[in-house]
Amino acid sequence: MEPPWQCSFWLALAFWTWMLEPMNLRDLGEDEVIRRLVALMPLAEEPAACPGDDCAIMRVGSGMLLLKTDALVEGVHFRPAESPERIGWKAIARVTSDFAAMGGRPENFLITVAVDPSMAVSWLEGVYRGMAACMRKHGGLLAGGETSSVPAGNAAVISVAAVGSVKPEHMVLRSGGRPGDVLLVTGTLGGSIHGKHLDFVPRVEEAAWLVGHHKPGAMMDLSDGLGADLPRLAKASGCGYEVDRASLPVADGCDAAAAWSDGEDYELLFAIVADCVPELLEEWSVVFPELPLTVIGKLTDGSAENSAGGWDHFSLR
Amino acid sequence: MEPPWQCSFWLALAFWTWMLEPMNLRDLGEDEVIRRLVALMPLAEEPAACPGDDCAIMRVGSGMLLLKTDALVEGVHFRPAESPERIGWKAIARVTSDFAAMGGRPENFLITVAVDPSMAVSWLEGVYRGMAACMRKHGGLLAGGETSSVPAGNAAVISVAAVGSVKPEHMVLRSGGRPGDVLLVTGTLGGSIHGKHLDFVPRVEEAAWLVGHHKPGAMMDLSDGLGADLPRLAKASGCGYEVDRASLPVADGCDAAAAWSDGEDYELLFAIVADCVPELLEEWSVVFPELPLTVIGKLTDGSAENSAGGWDHFSLR
Repeated sequence: MEPPWQCSFWLALAFWTWMLEPMNLRDLGEDEVIRRLVALMPLAEEPAACPGDDCAIMRVGSGMLLLKTDALVEGVHFRPAESPERIGWKAIARVTSDFAAMGGRPENFLITVAVDPSMAVSWLEGVYRGMAACMRKHGGLLAGGETSSVPAGNAAVISVAAVGSVKPEHMVLRSGGRPGDVLLVTGTLGGSIHGKHLDFVPRVEEAAWLVGHHKPGAMMDLSDGLGADLPRLAKASGCGYEVDRASLPVADGCDAAAAWSDGEDYELLFAIVADCVPELLEEWSVVFPELPLTVIGKLTDGSAENSAGGWDHFSLR
Repeated sequence: MEPPWQCSFWLALAFWTWMLEPMNLRDLGEDEVIRRLVALMPLAEEPAACPGDDCAIMRVGSGMLLLKTDALVEGVHFRPAESPERIGWKAIARVTSDFAAMGGRPENFLITVAVDPSMAVSWLEGVYRGMAACMRKHGGLLAGGETSSVPAGNAAVISVAAVGSVKPEHMVLRSGGRPGDVLLVTGTLGGSIHGKHLDFVPRVEEAAWLVGHHKPGAMMDLSDGLGADLPRLAKASGCGYEVDRASLPVADGCDAAAAWSDGEDYELLFAIVADCVPELLEEWSVVFPELPLTVIGKLTDGSAENSAGGWDHFSLR
C-alpha cells in the first residue's frame, strides 16, 4: 500500500498544474480584459476623457475634440472573399457612426493597414476606394497612416483612428439619460449579417439634426446589438430600462430576437425627455421620411439588468 | 504541320495570363503602394496637414495638434517569444519618438490590440504594463482604444494612434532644411536589432530643448536607417546631402555600414544653420553629457540621390 503522502503529492501536483495554467483572453471575456488593461494605464483625471463612451473627449483650449479608433480583422469582421470596396466603406463608416452618436463629425483620419505582401495591389486599392467613398459622402479627410506587412498567410488588419469635432452644446454622452426618458431607435434592427453590416449608412445627418433640434439626454450607436448596447446606455445613465419587444422595428426577414441580438445595426439609440417625443416624431417624419424612428421603451429608476445577446470578442467566439 | 494561327493563339494566351496576374504589394514596393493609395483619398488642401512628415498636423482654432499612428505586428516587428513589457514599451516609444521629431509631445493615446483569444491574459497585461511605463516616463494618457480578436494562430497586431501638442513656434518639419545646413544625429547608430529596438529612449527631452534653444531647420527620427531616412529629409527640403561616413557615430560592435543601414535607431536627425553649430555642441555636452551629438555632413544644393539600405515593408521582406 502506498503511503498517504504520495496520494497528496499527486493531488497537489494536479492542483498546481491547474493553477499555473495561464488564463486566456477568451476565458476572461472582453469586458474584464479591458477593465484589467485600463487599470494599468495612466488616464486623464477628468472622467469625460476616459474610455467608455462612443468616442473619447479631448479638451483643447475652450473647445473639445472627439477621438475614436476601430479595427476590422479579416476572418472576424469580414470574409476574405468580400468586396474590398465594401470592407473599406465599413471601416470608415463604423468610426463615422461613433462620431455621429456623440453629436459630432470626423475630421481627420489615420488609416493603418497590416496585410500580407503577396496580397494583390488591386485589393488594397479597392479597400481605399471604399474608404474614400464613405469619407466623401459623410465627411473627413485622410491625415496620415501606415502600411505594414503581416507574416505570409496571416489575417489582414485595418485599423482606423480619427479626430473629429463637436460643438460643446451639441455633445451627447451615454450617461445623460434620466428615469422616464423615452428610448428611440432609428431604422430597423436585425439581419445585418446578410449584407447591411458592410454598406450601412452612418447616421451623421440624422444625429446632427437631432442634437440641433431635439437634443437627446443620452445617445449611442448600436454596434453590438440592442440587447448588449441598451444595458450599457442605461448603466452609464444610472438607470434601468423597459423595452416593449413587440415594438421593436424589425428588419425584413428577421424576428424580434434577431433585432435584439444580431448586432452591427449601426443605428442610433437615444433617450429623450418624454414631453419632446410627439413633436420629435412629427418633425422627423417630415425631415427624414424614409428612415423610421421608433419608440421602443423607456429608462426606469431600476438598475440595468444583464440581458442575453450581443457580441463579446473574447468569449462568444 | 500546325497552322500558324495556333502558335499565335498560345503566345497570346501566355501573354494575357501574364497580363492578368494581379500585381502584388511586394512587387510594387511600399512607397509606390502608398503613393497609389493616397491618390485615391480626400486630402486636406493645406499641404502641412497631408501625409509625409513624422506626424500629420491638424489646425484647431489658432493652435495646432499633431497626429500619428503606428503599428507593431508579431513576427514582423517583434518575435512571439519577446518580453511583452518590451513590446509594449516599443509600441508607445515609436509614436512618442515621432512627436519628438516634430518638436512636440503626445497627449492622448488610442490603443488597438487584435490578438488570438487563446493568448494568455498575462501576456497582454505585460504589453500594457510596458506601454504604461513609457507613457509615465515620456508623457501621454490613455484616451481610448479597442480589443479585437484575430483568427486562431494569426499574428497579433498592436496599433497605436496618438494626438499631441506642439507650440507653433517650436514645430519642425522635414522640409525646412537649406543648402549648407549642417546635419547632426543624436546617440549612436546601428545594431538596434540586438535589443535597442525594443527599449530605446524616445528623444523627447532632447528635442524639446533643441527647439527651444537651437531650433533646427529640419528634423526627423531615424526609424528606417540613416541611409533611407536622410534622403527623405533632404528630398523634403529640396536639397542634396553629403555624409562623411567616417564620422558616423557607430554603436559598439557595429561598422559604418550597419550604422547606415540597420534602422530602428530612433535617434534624431536634424539640419541646422552652420553658424549655430559650435555653440550648440558646447551647450549640448553640458545639458546632455551622456548622449553624443555628432556632425555627420551637410545639406547641399544638389538633389537627394537614392541610397542603399533601409527597410521597405513590401519589397525587402
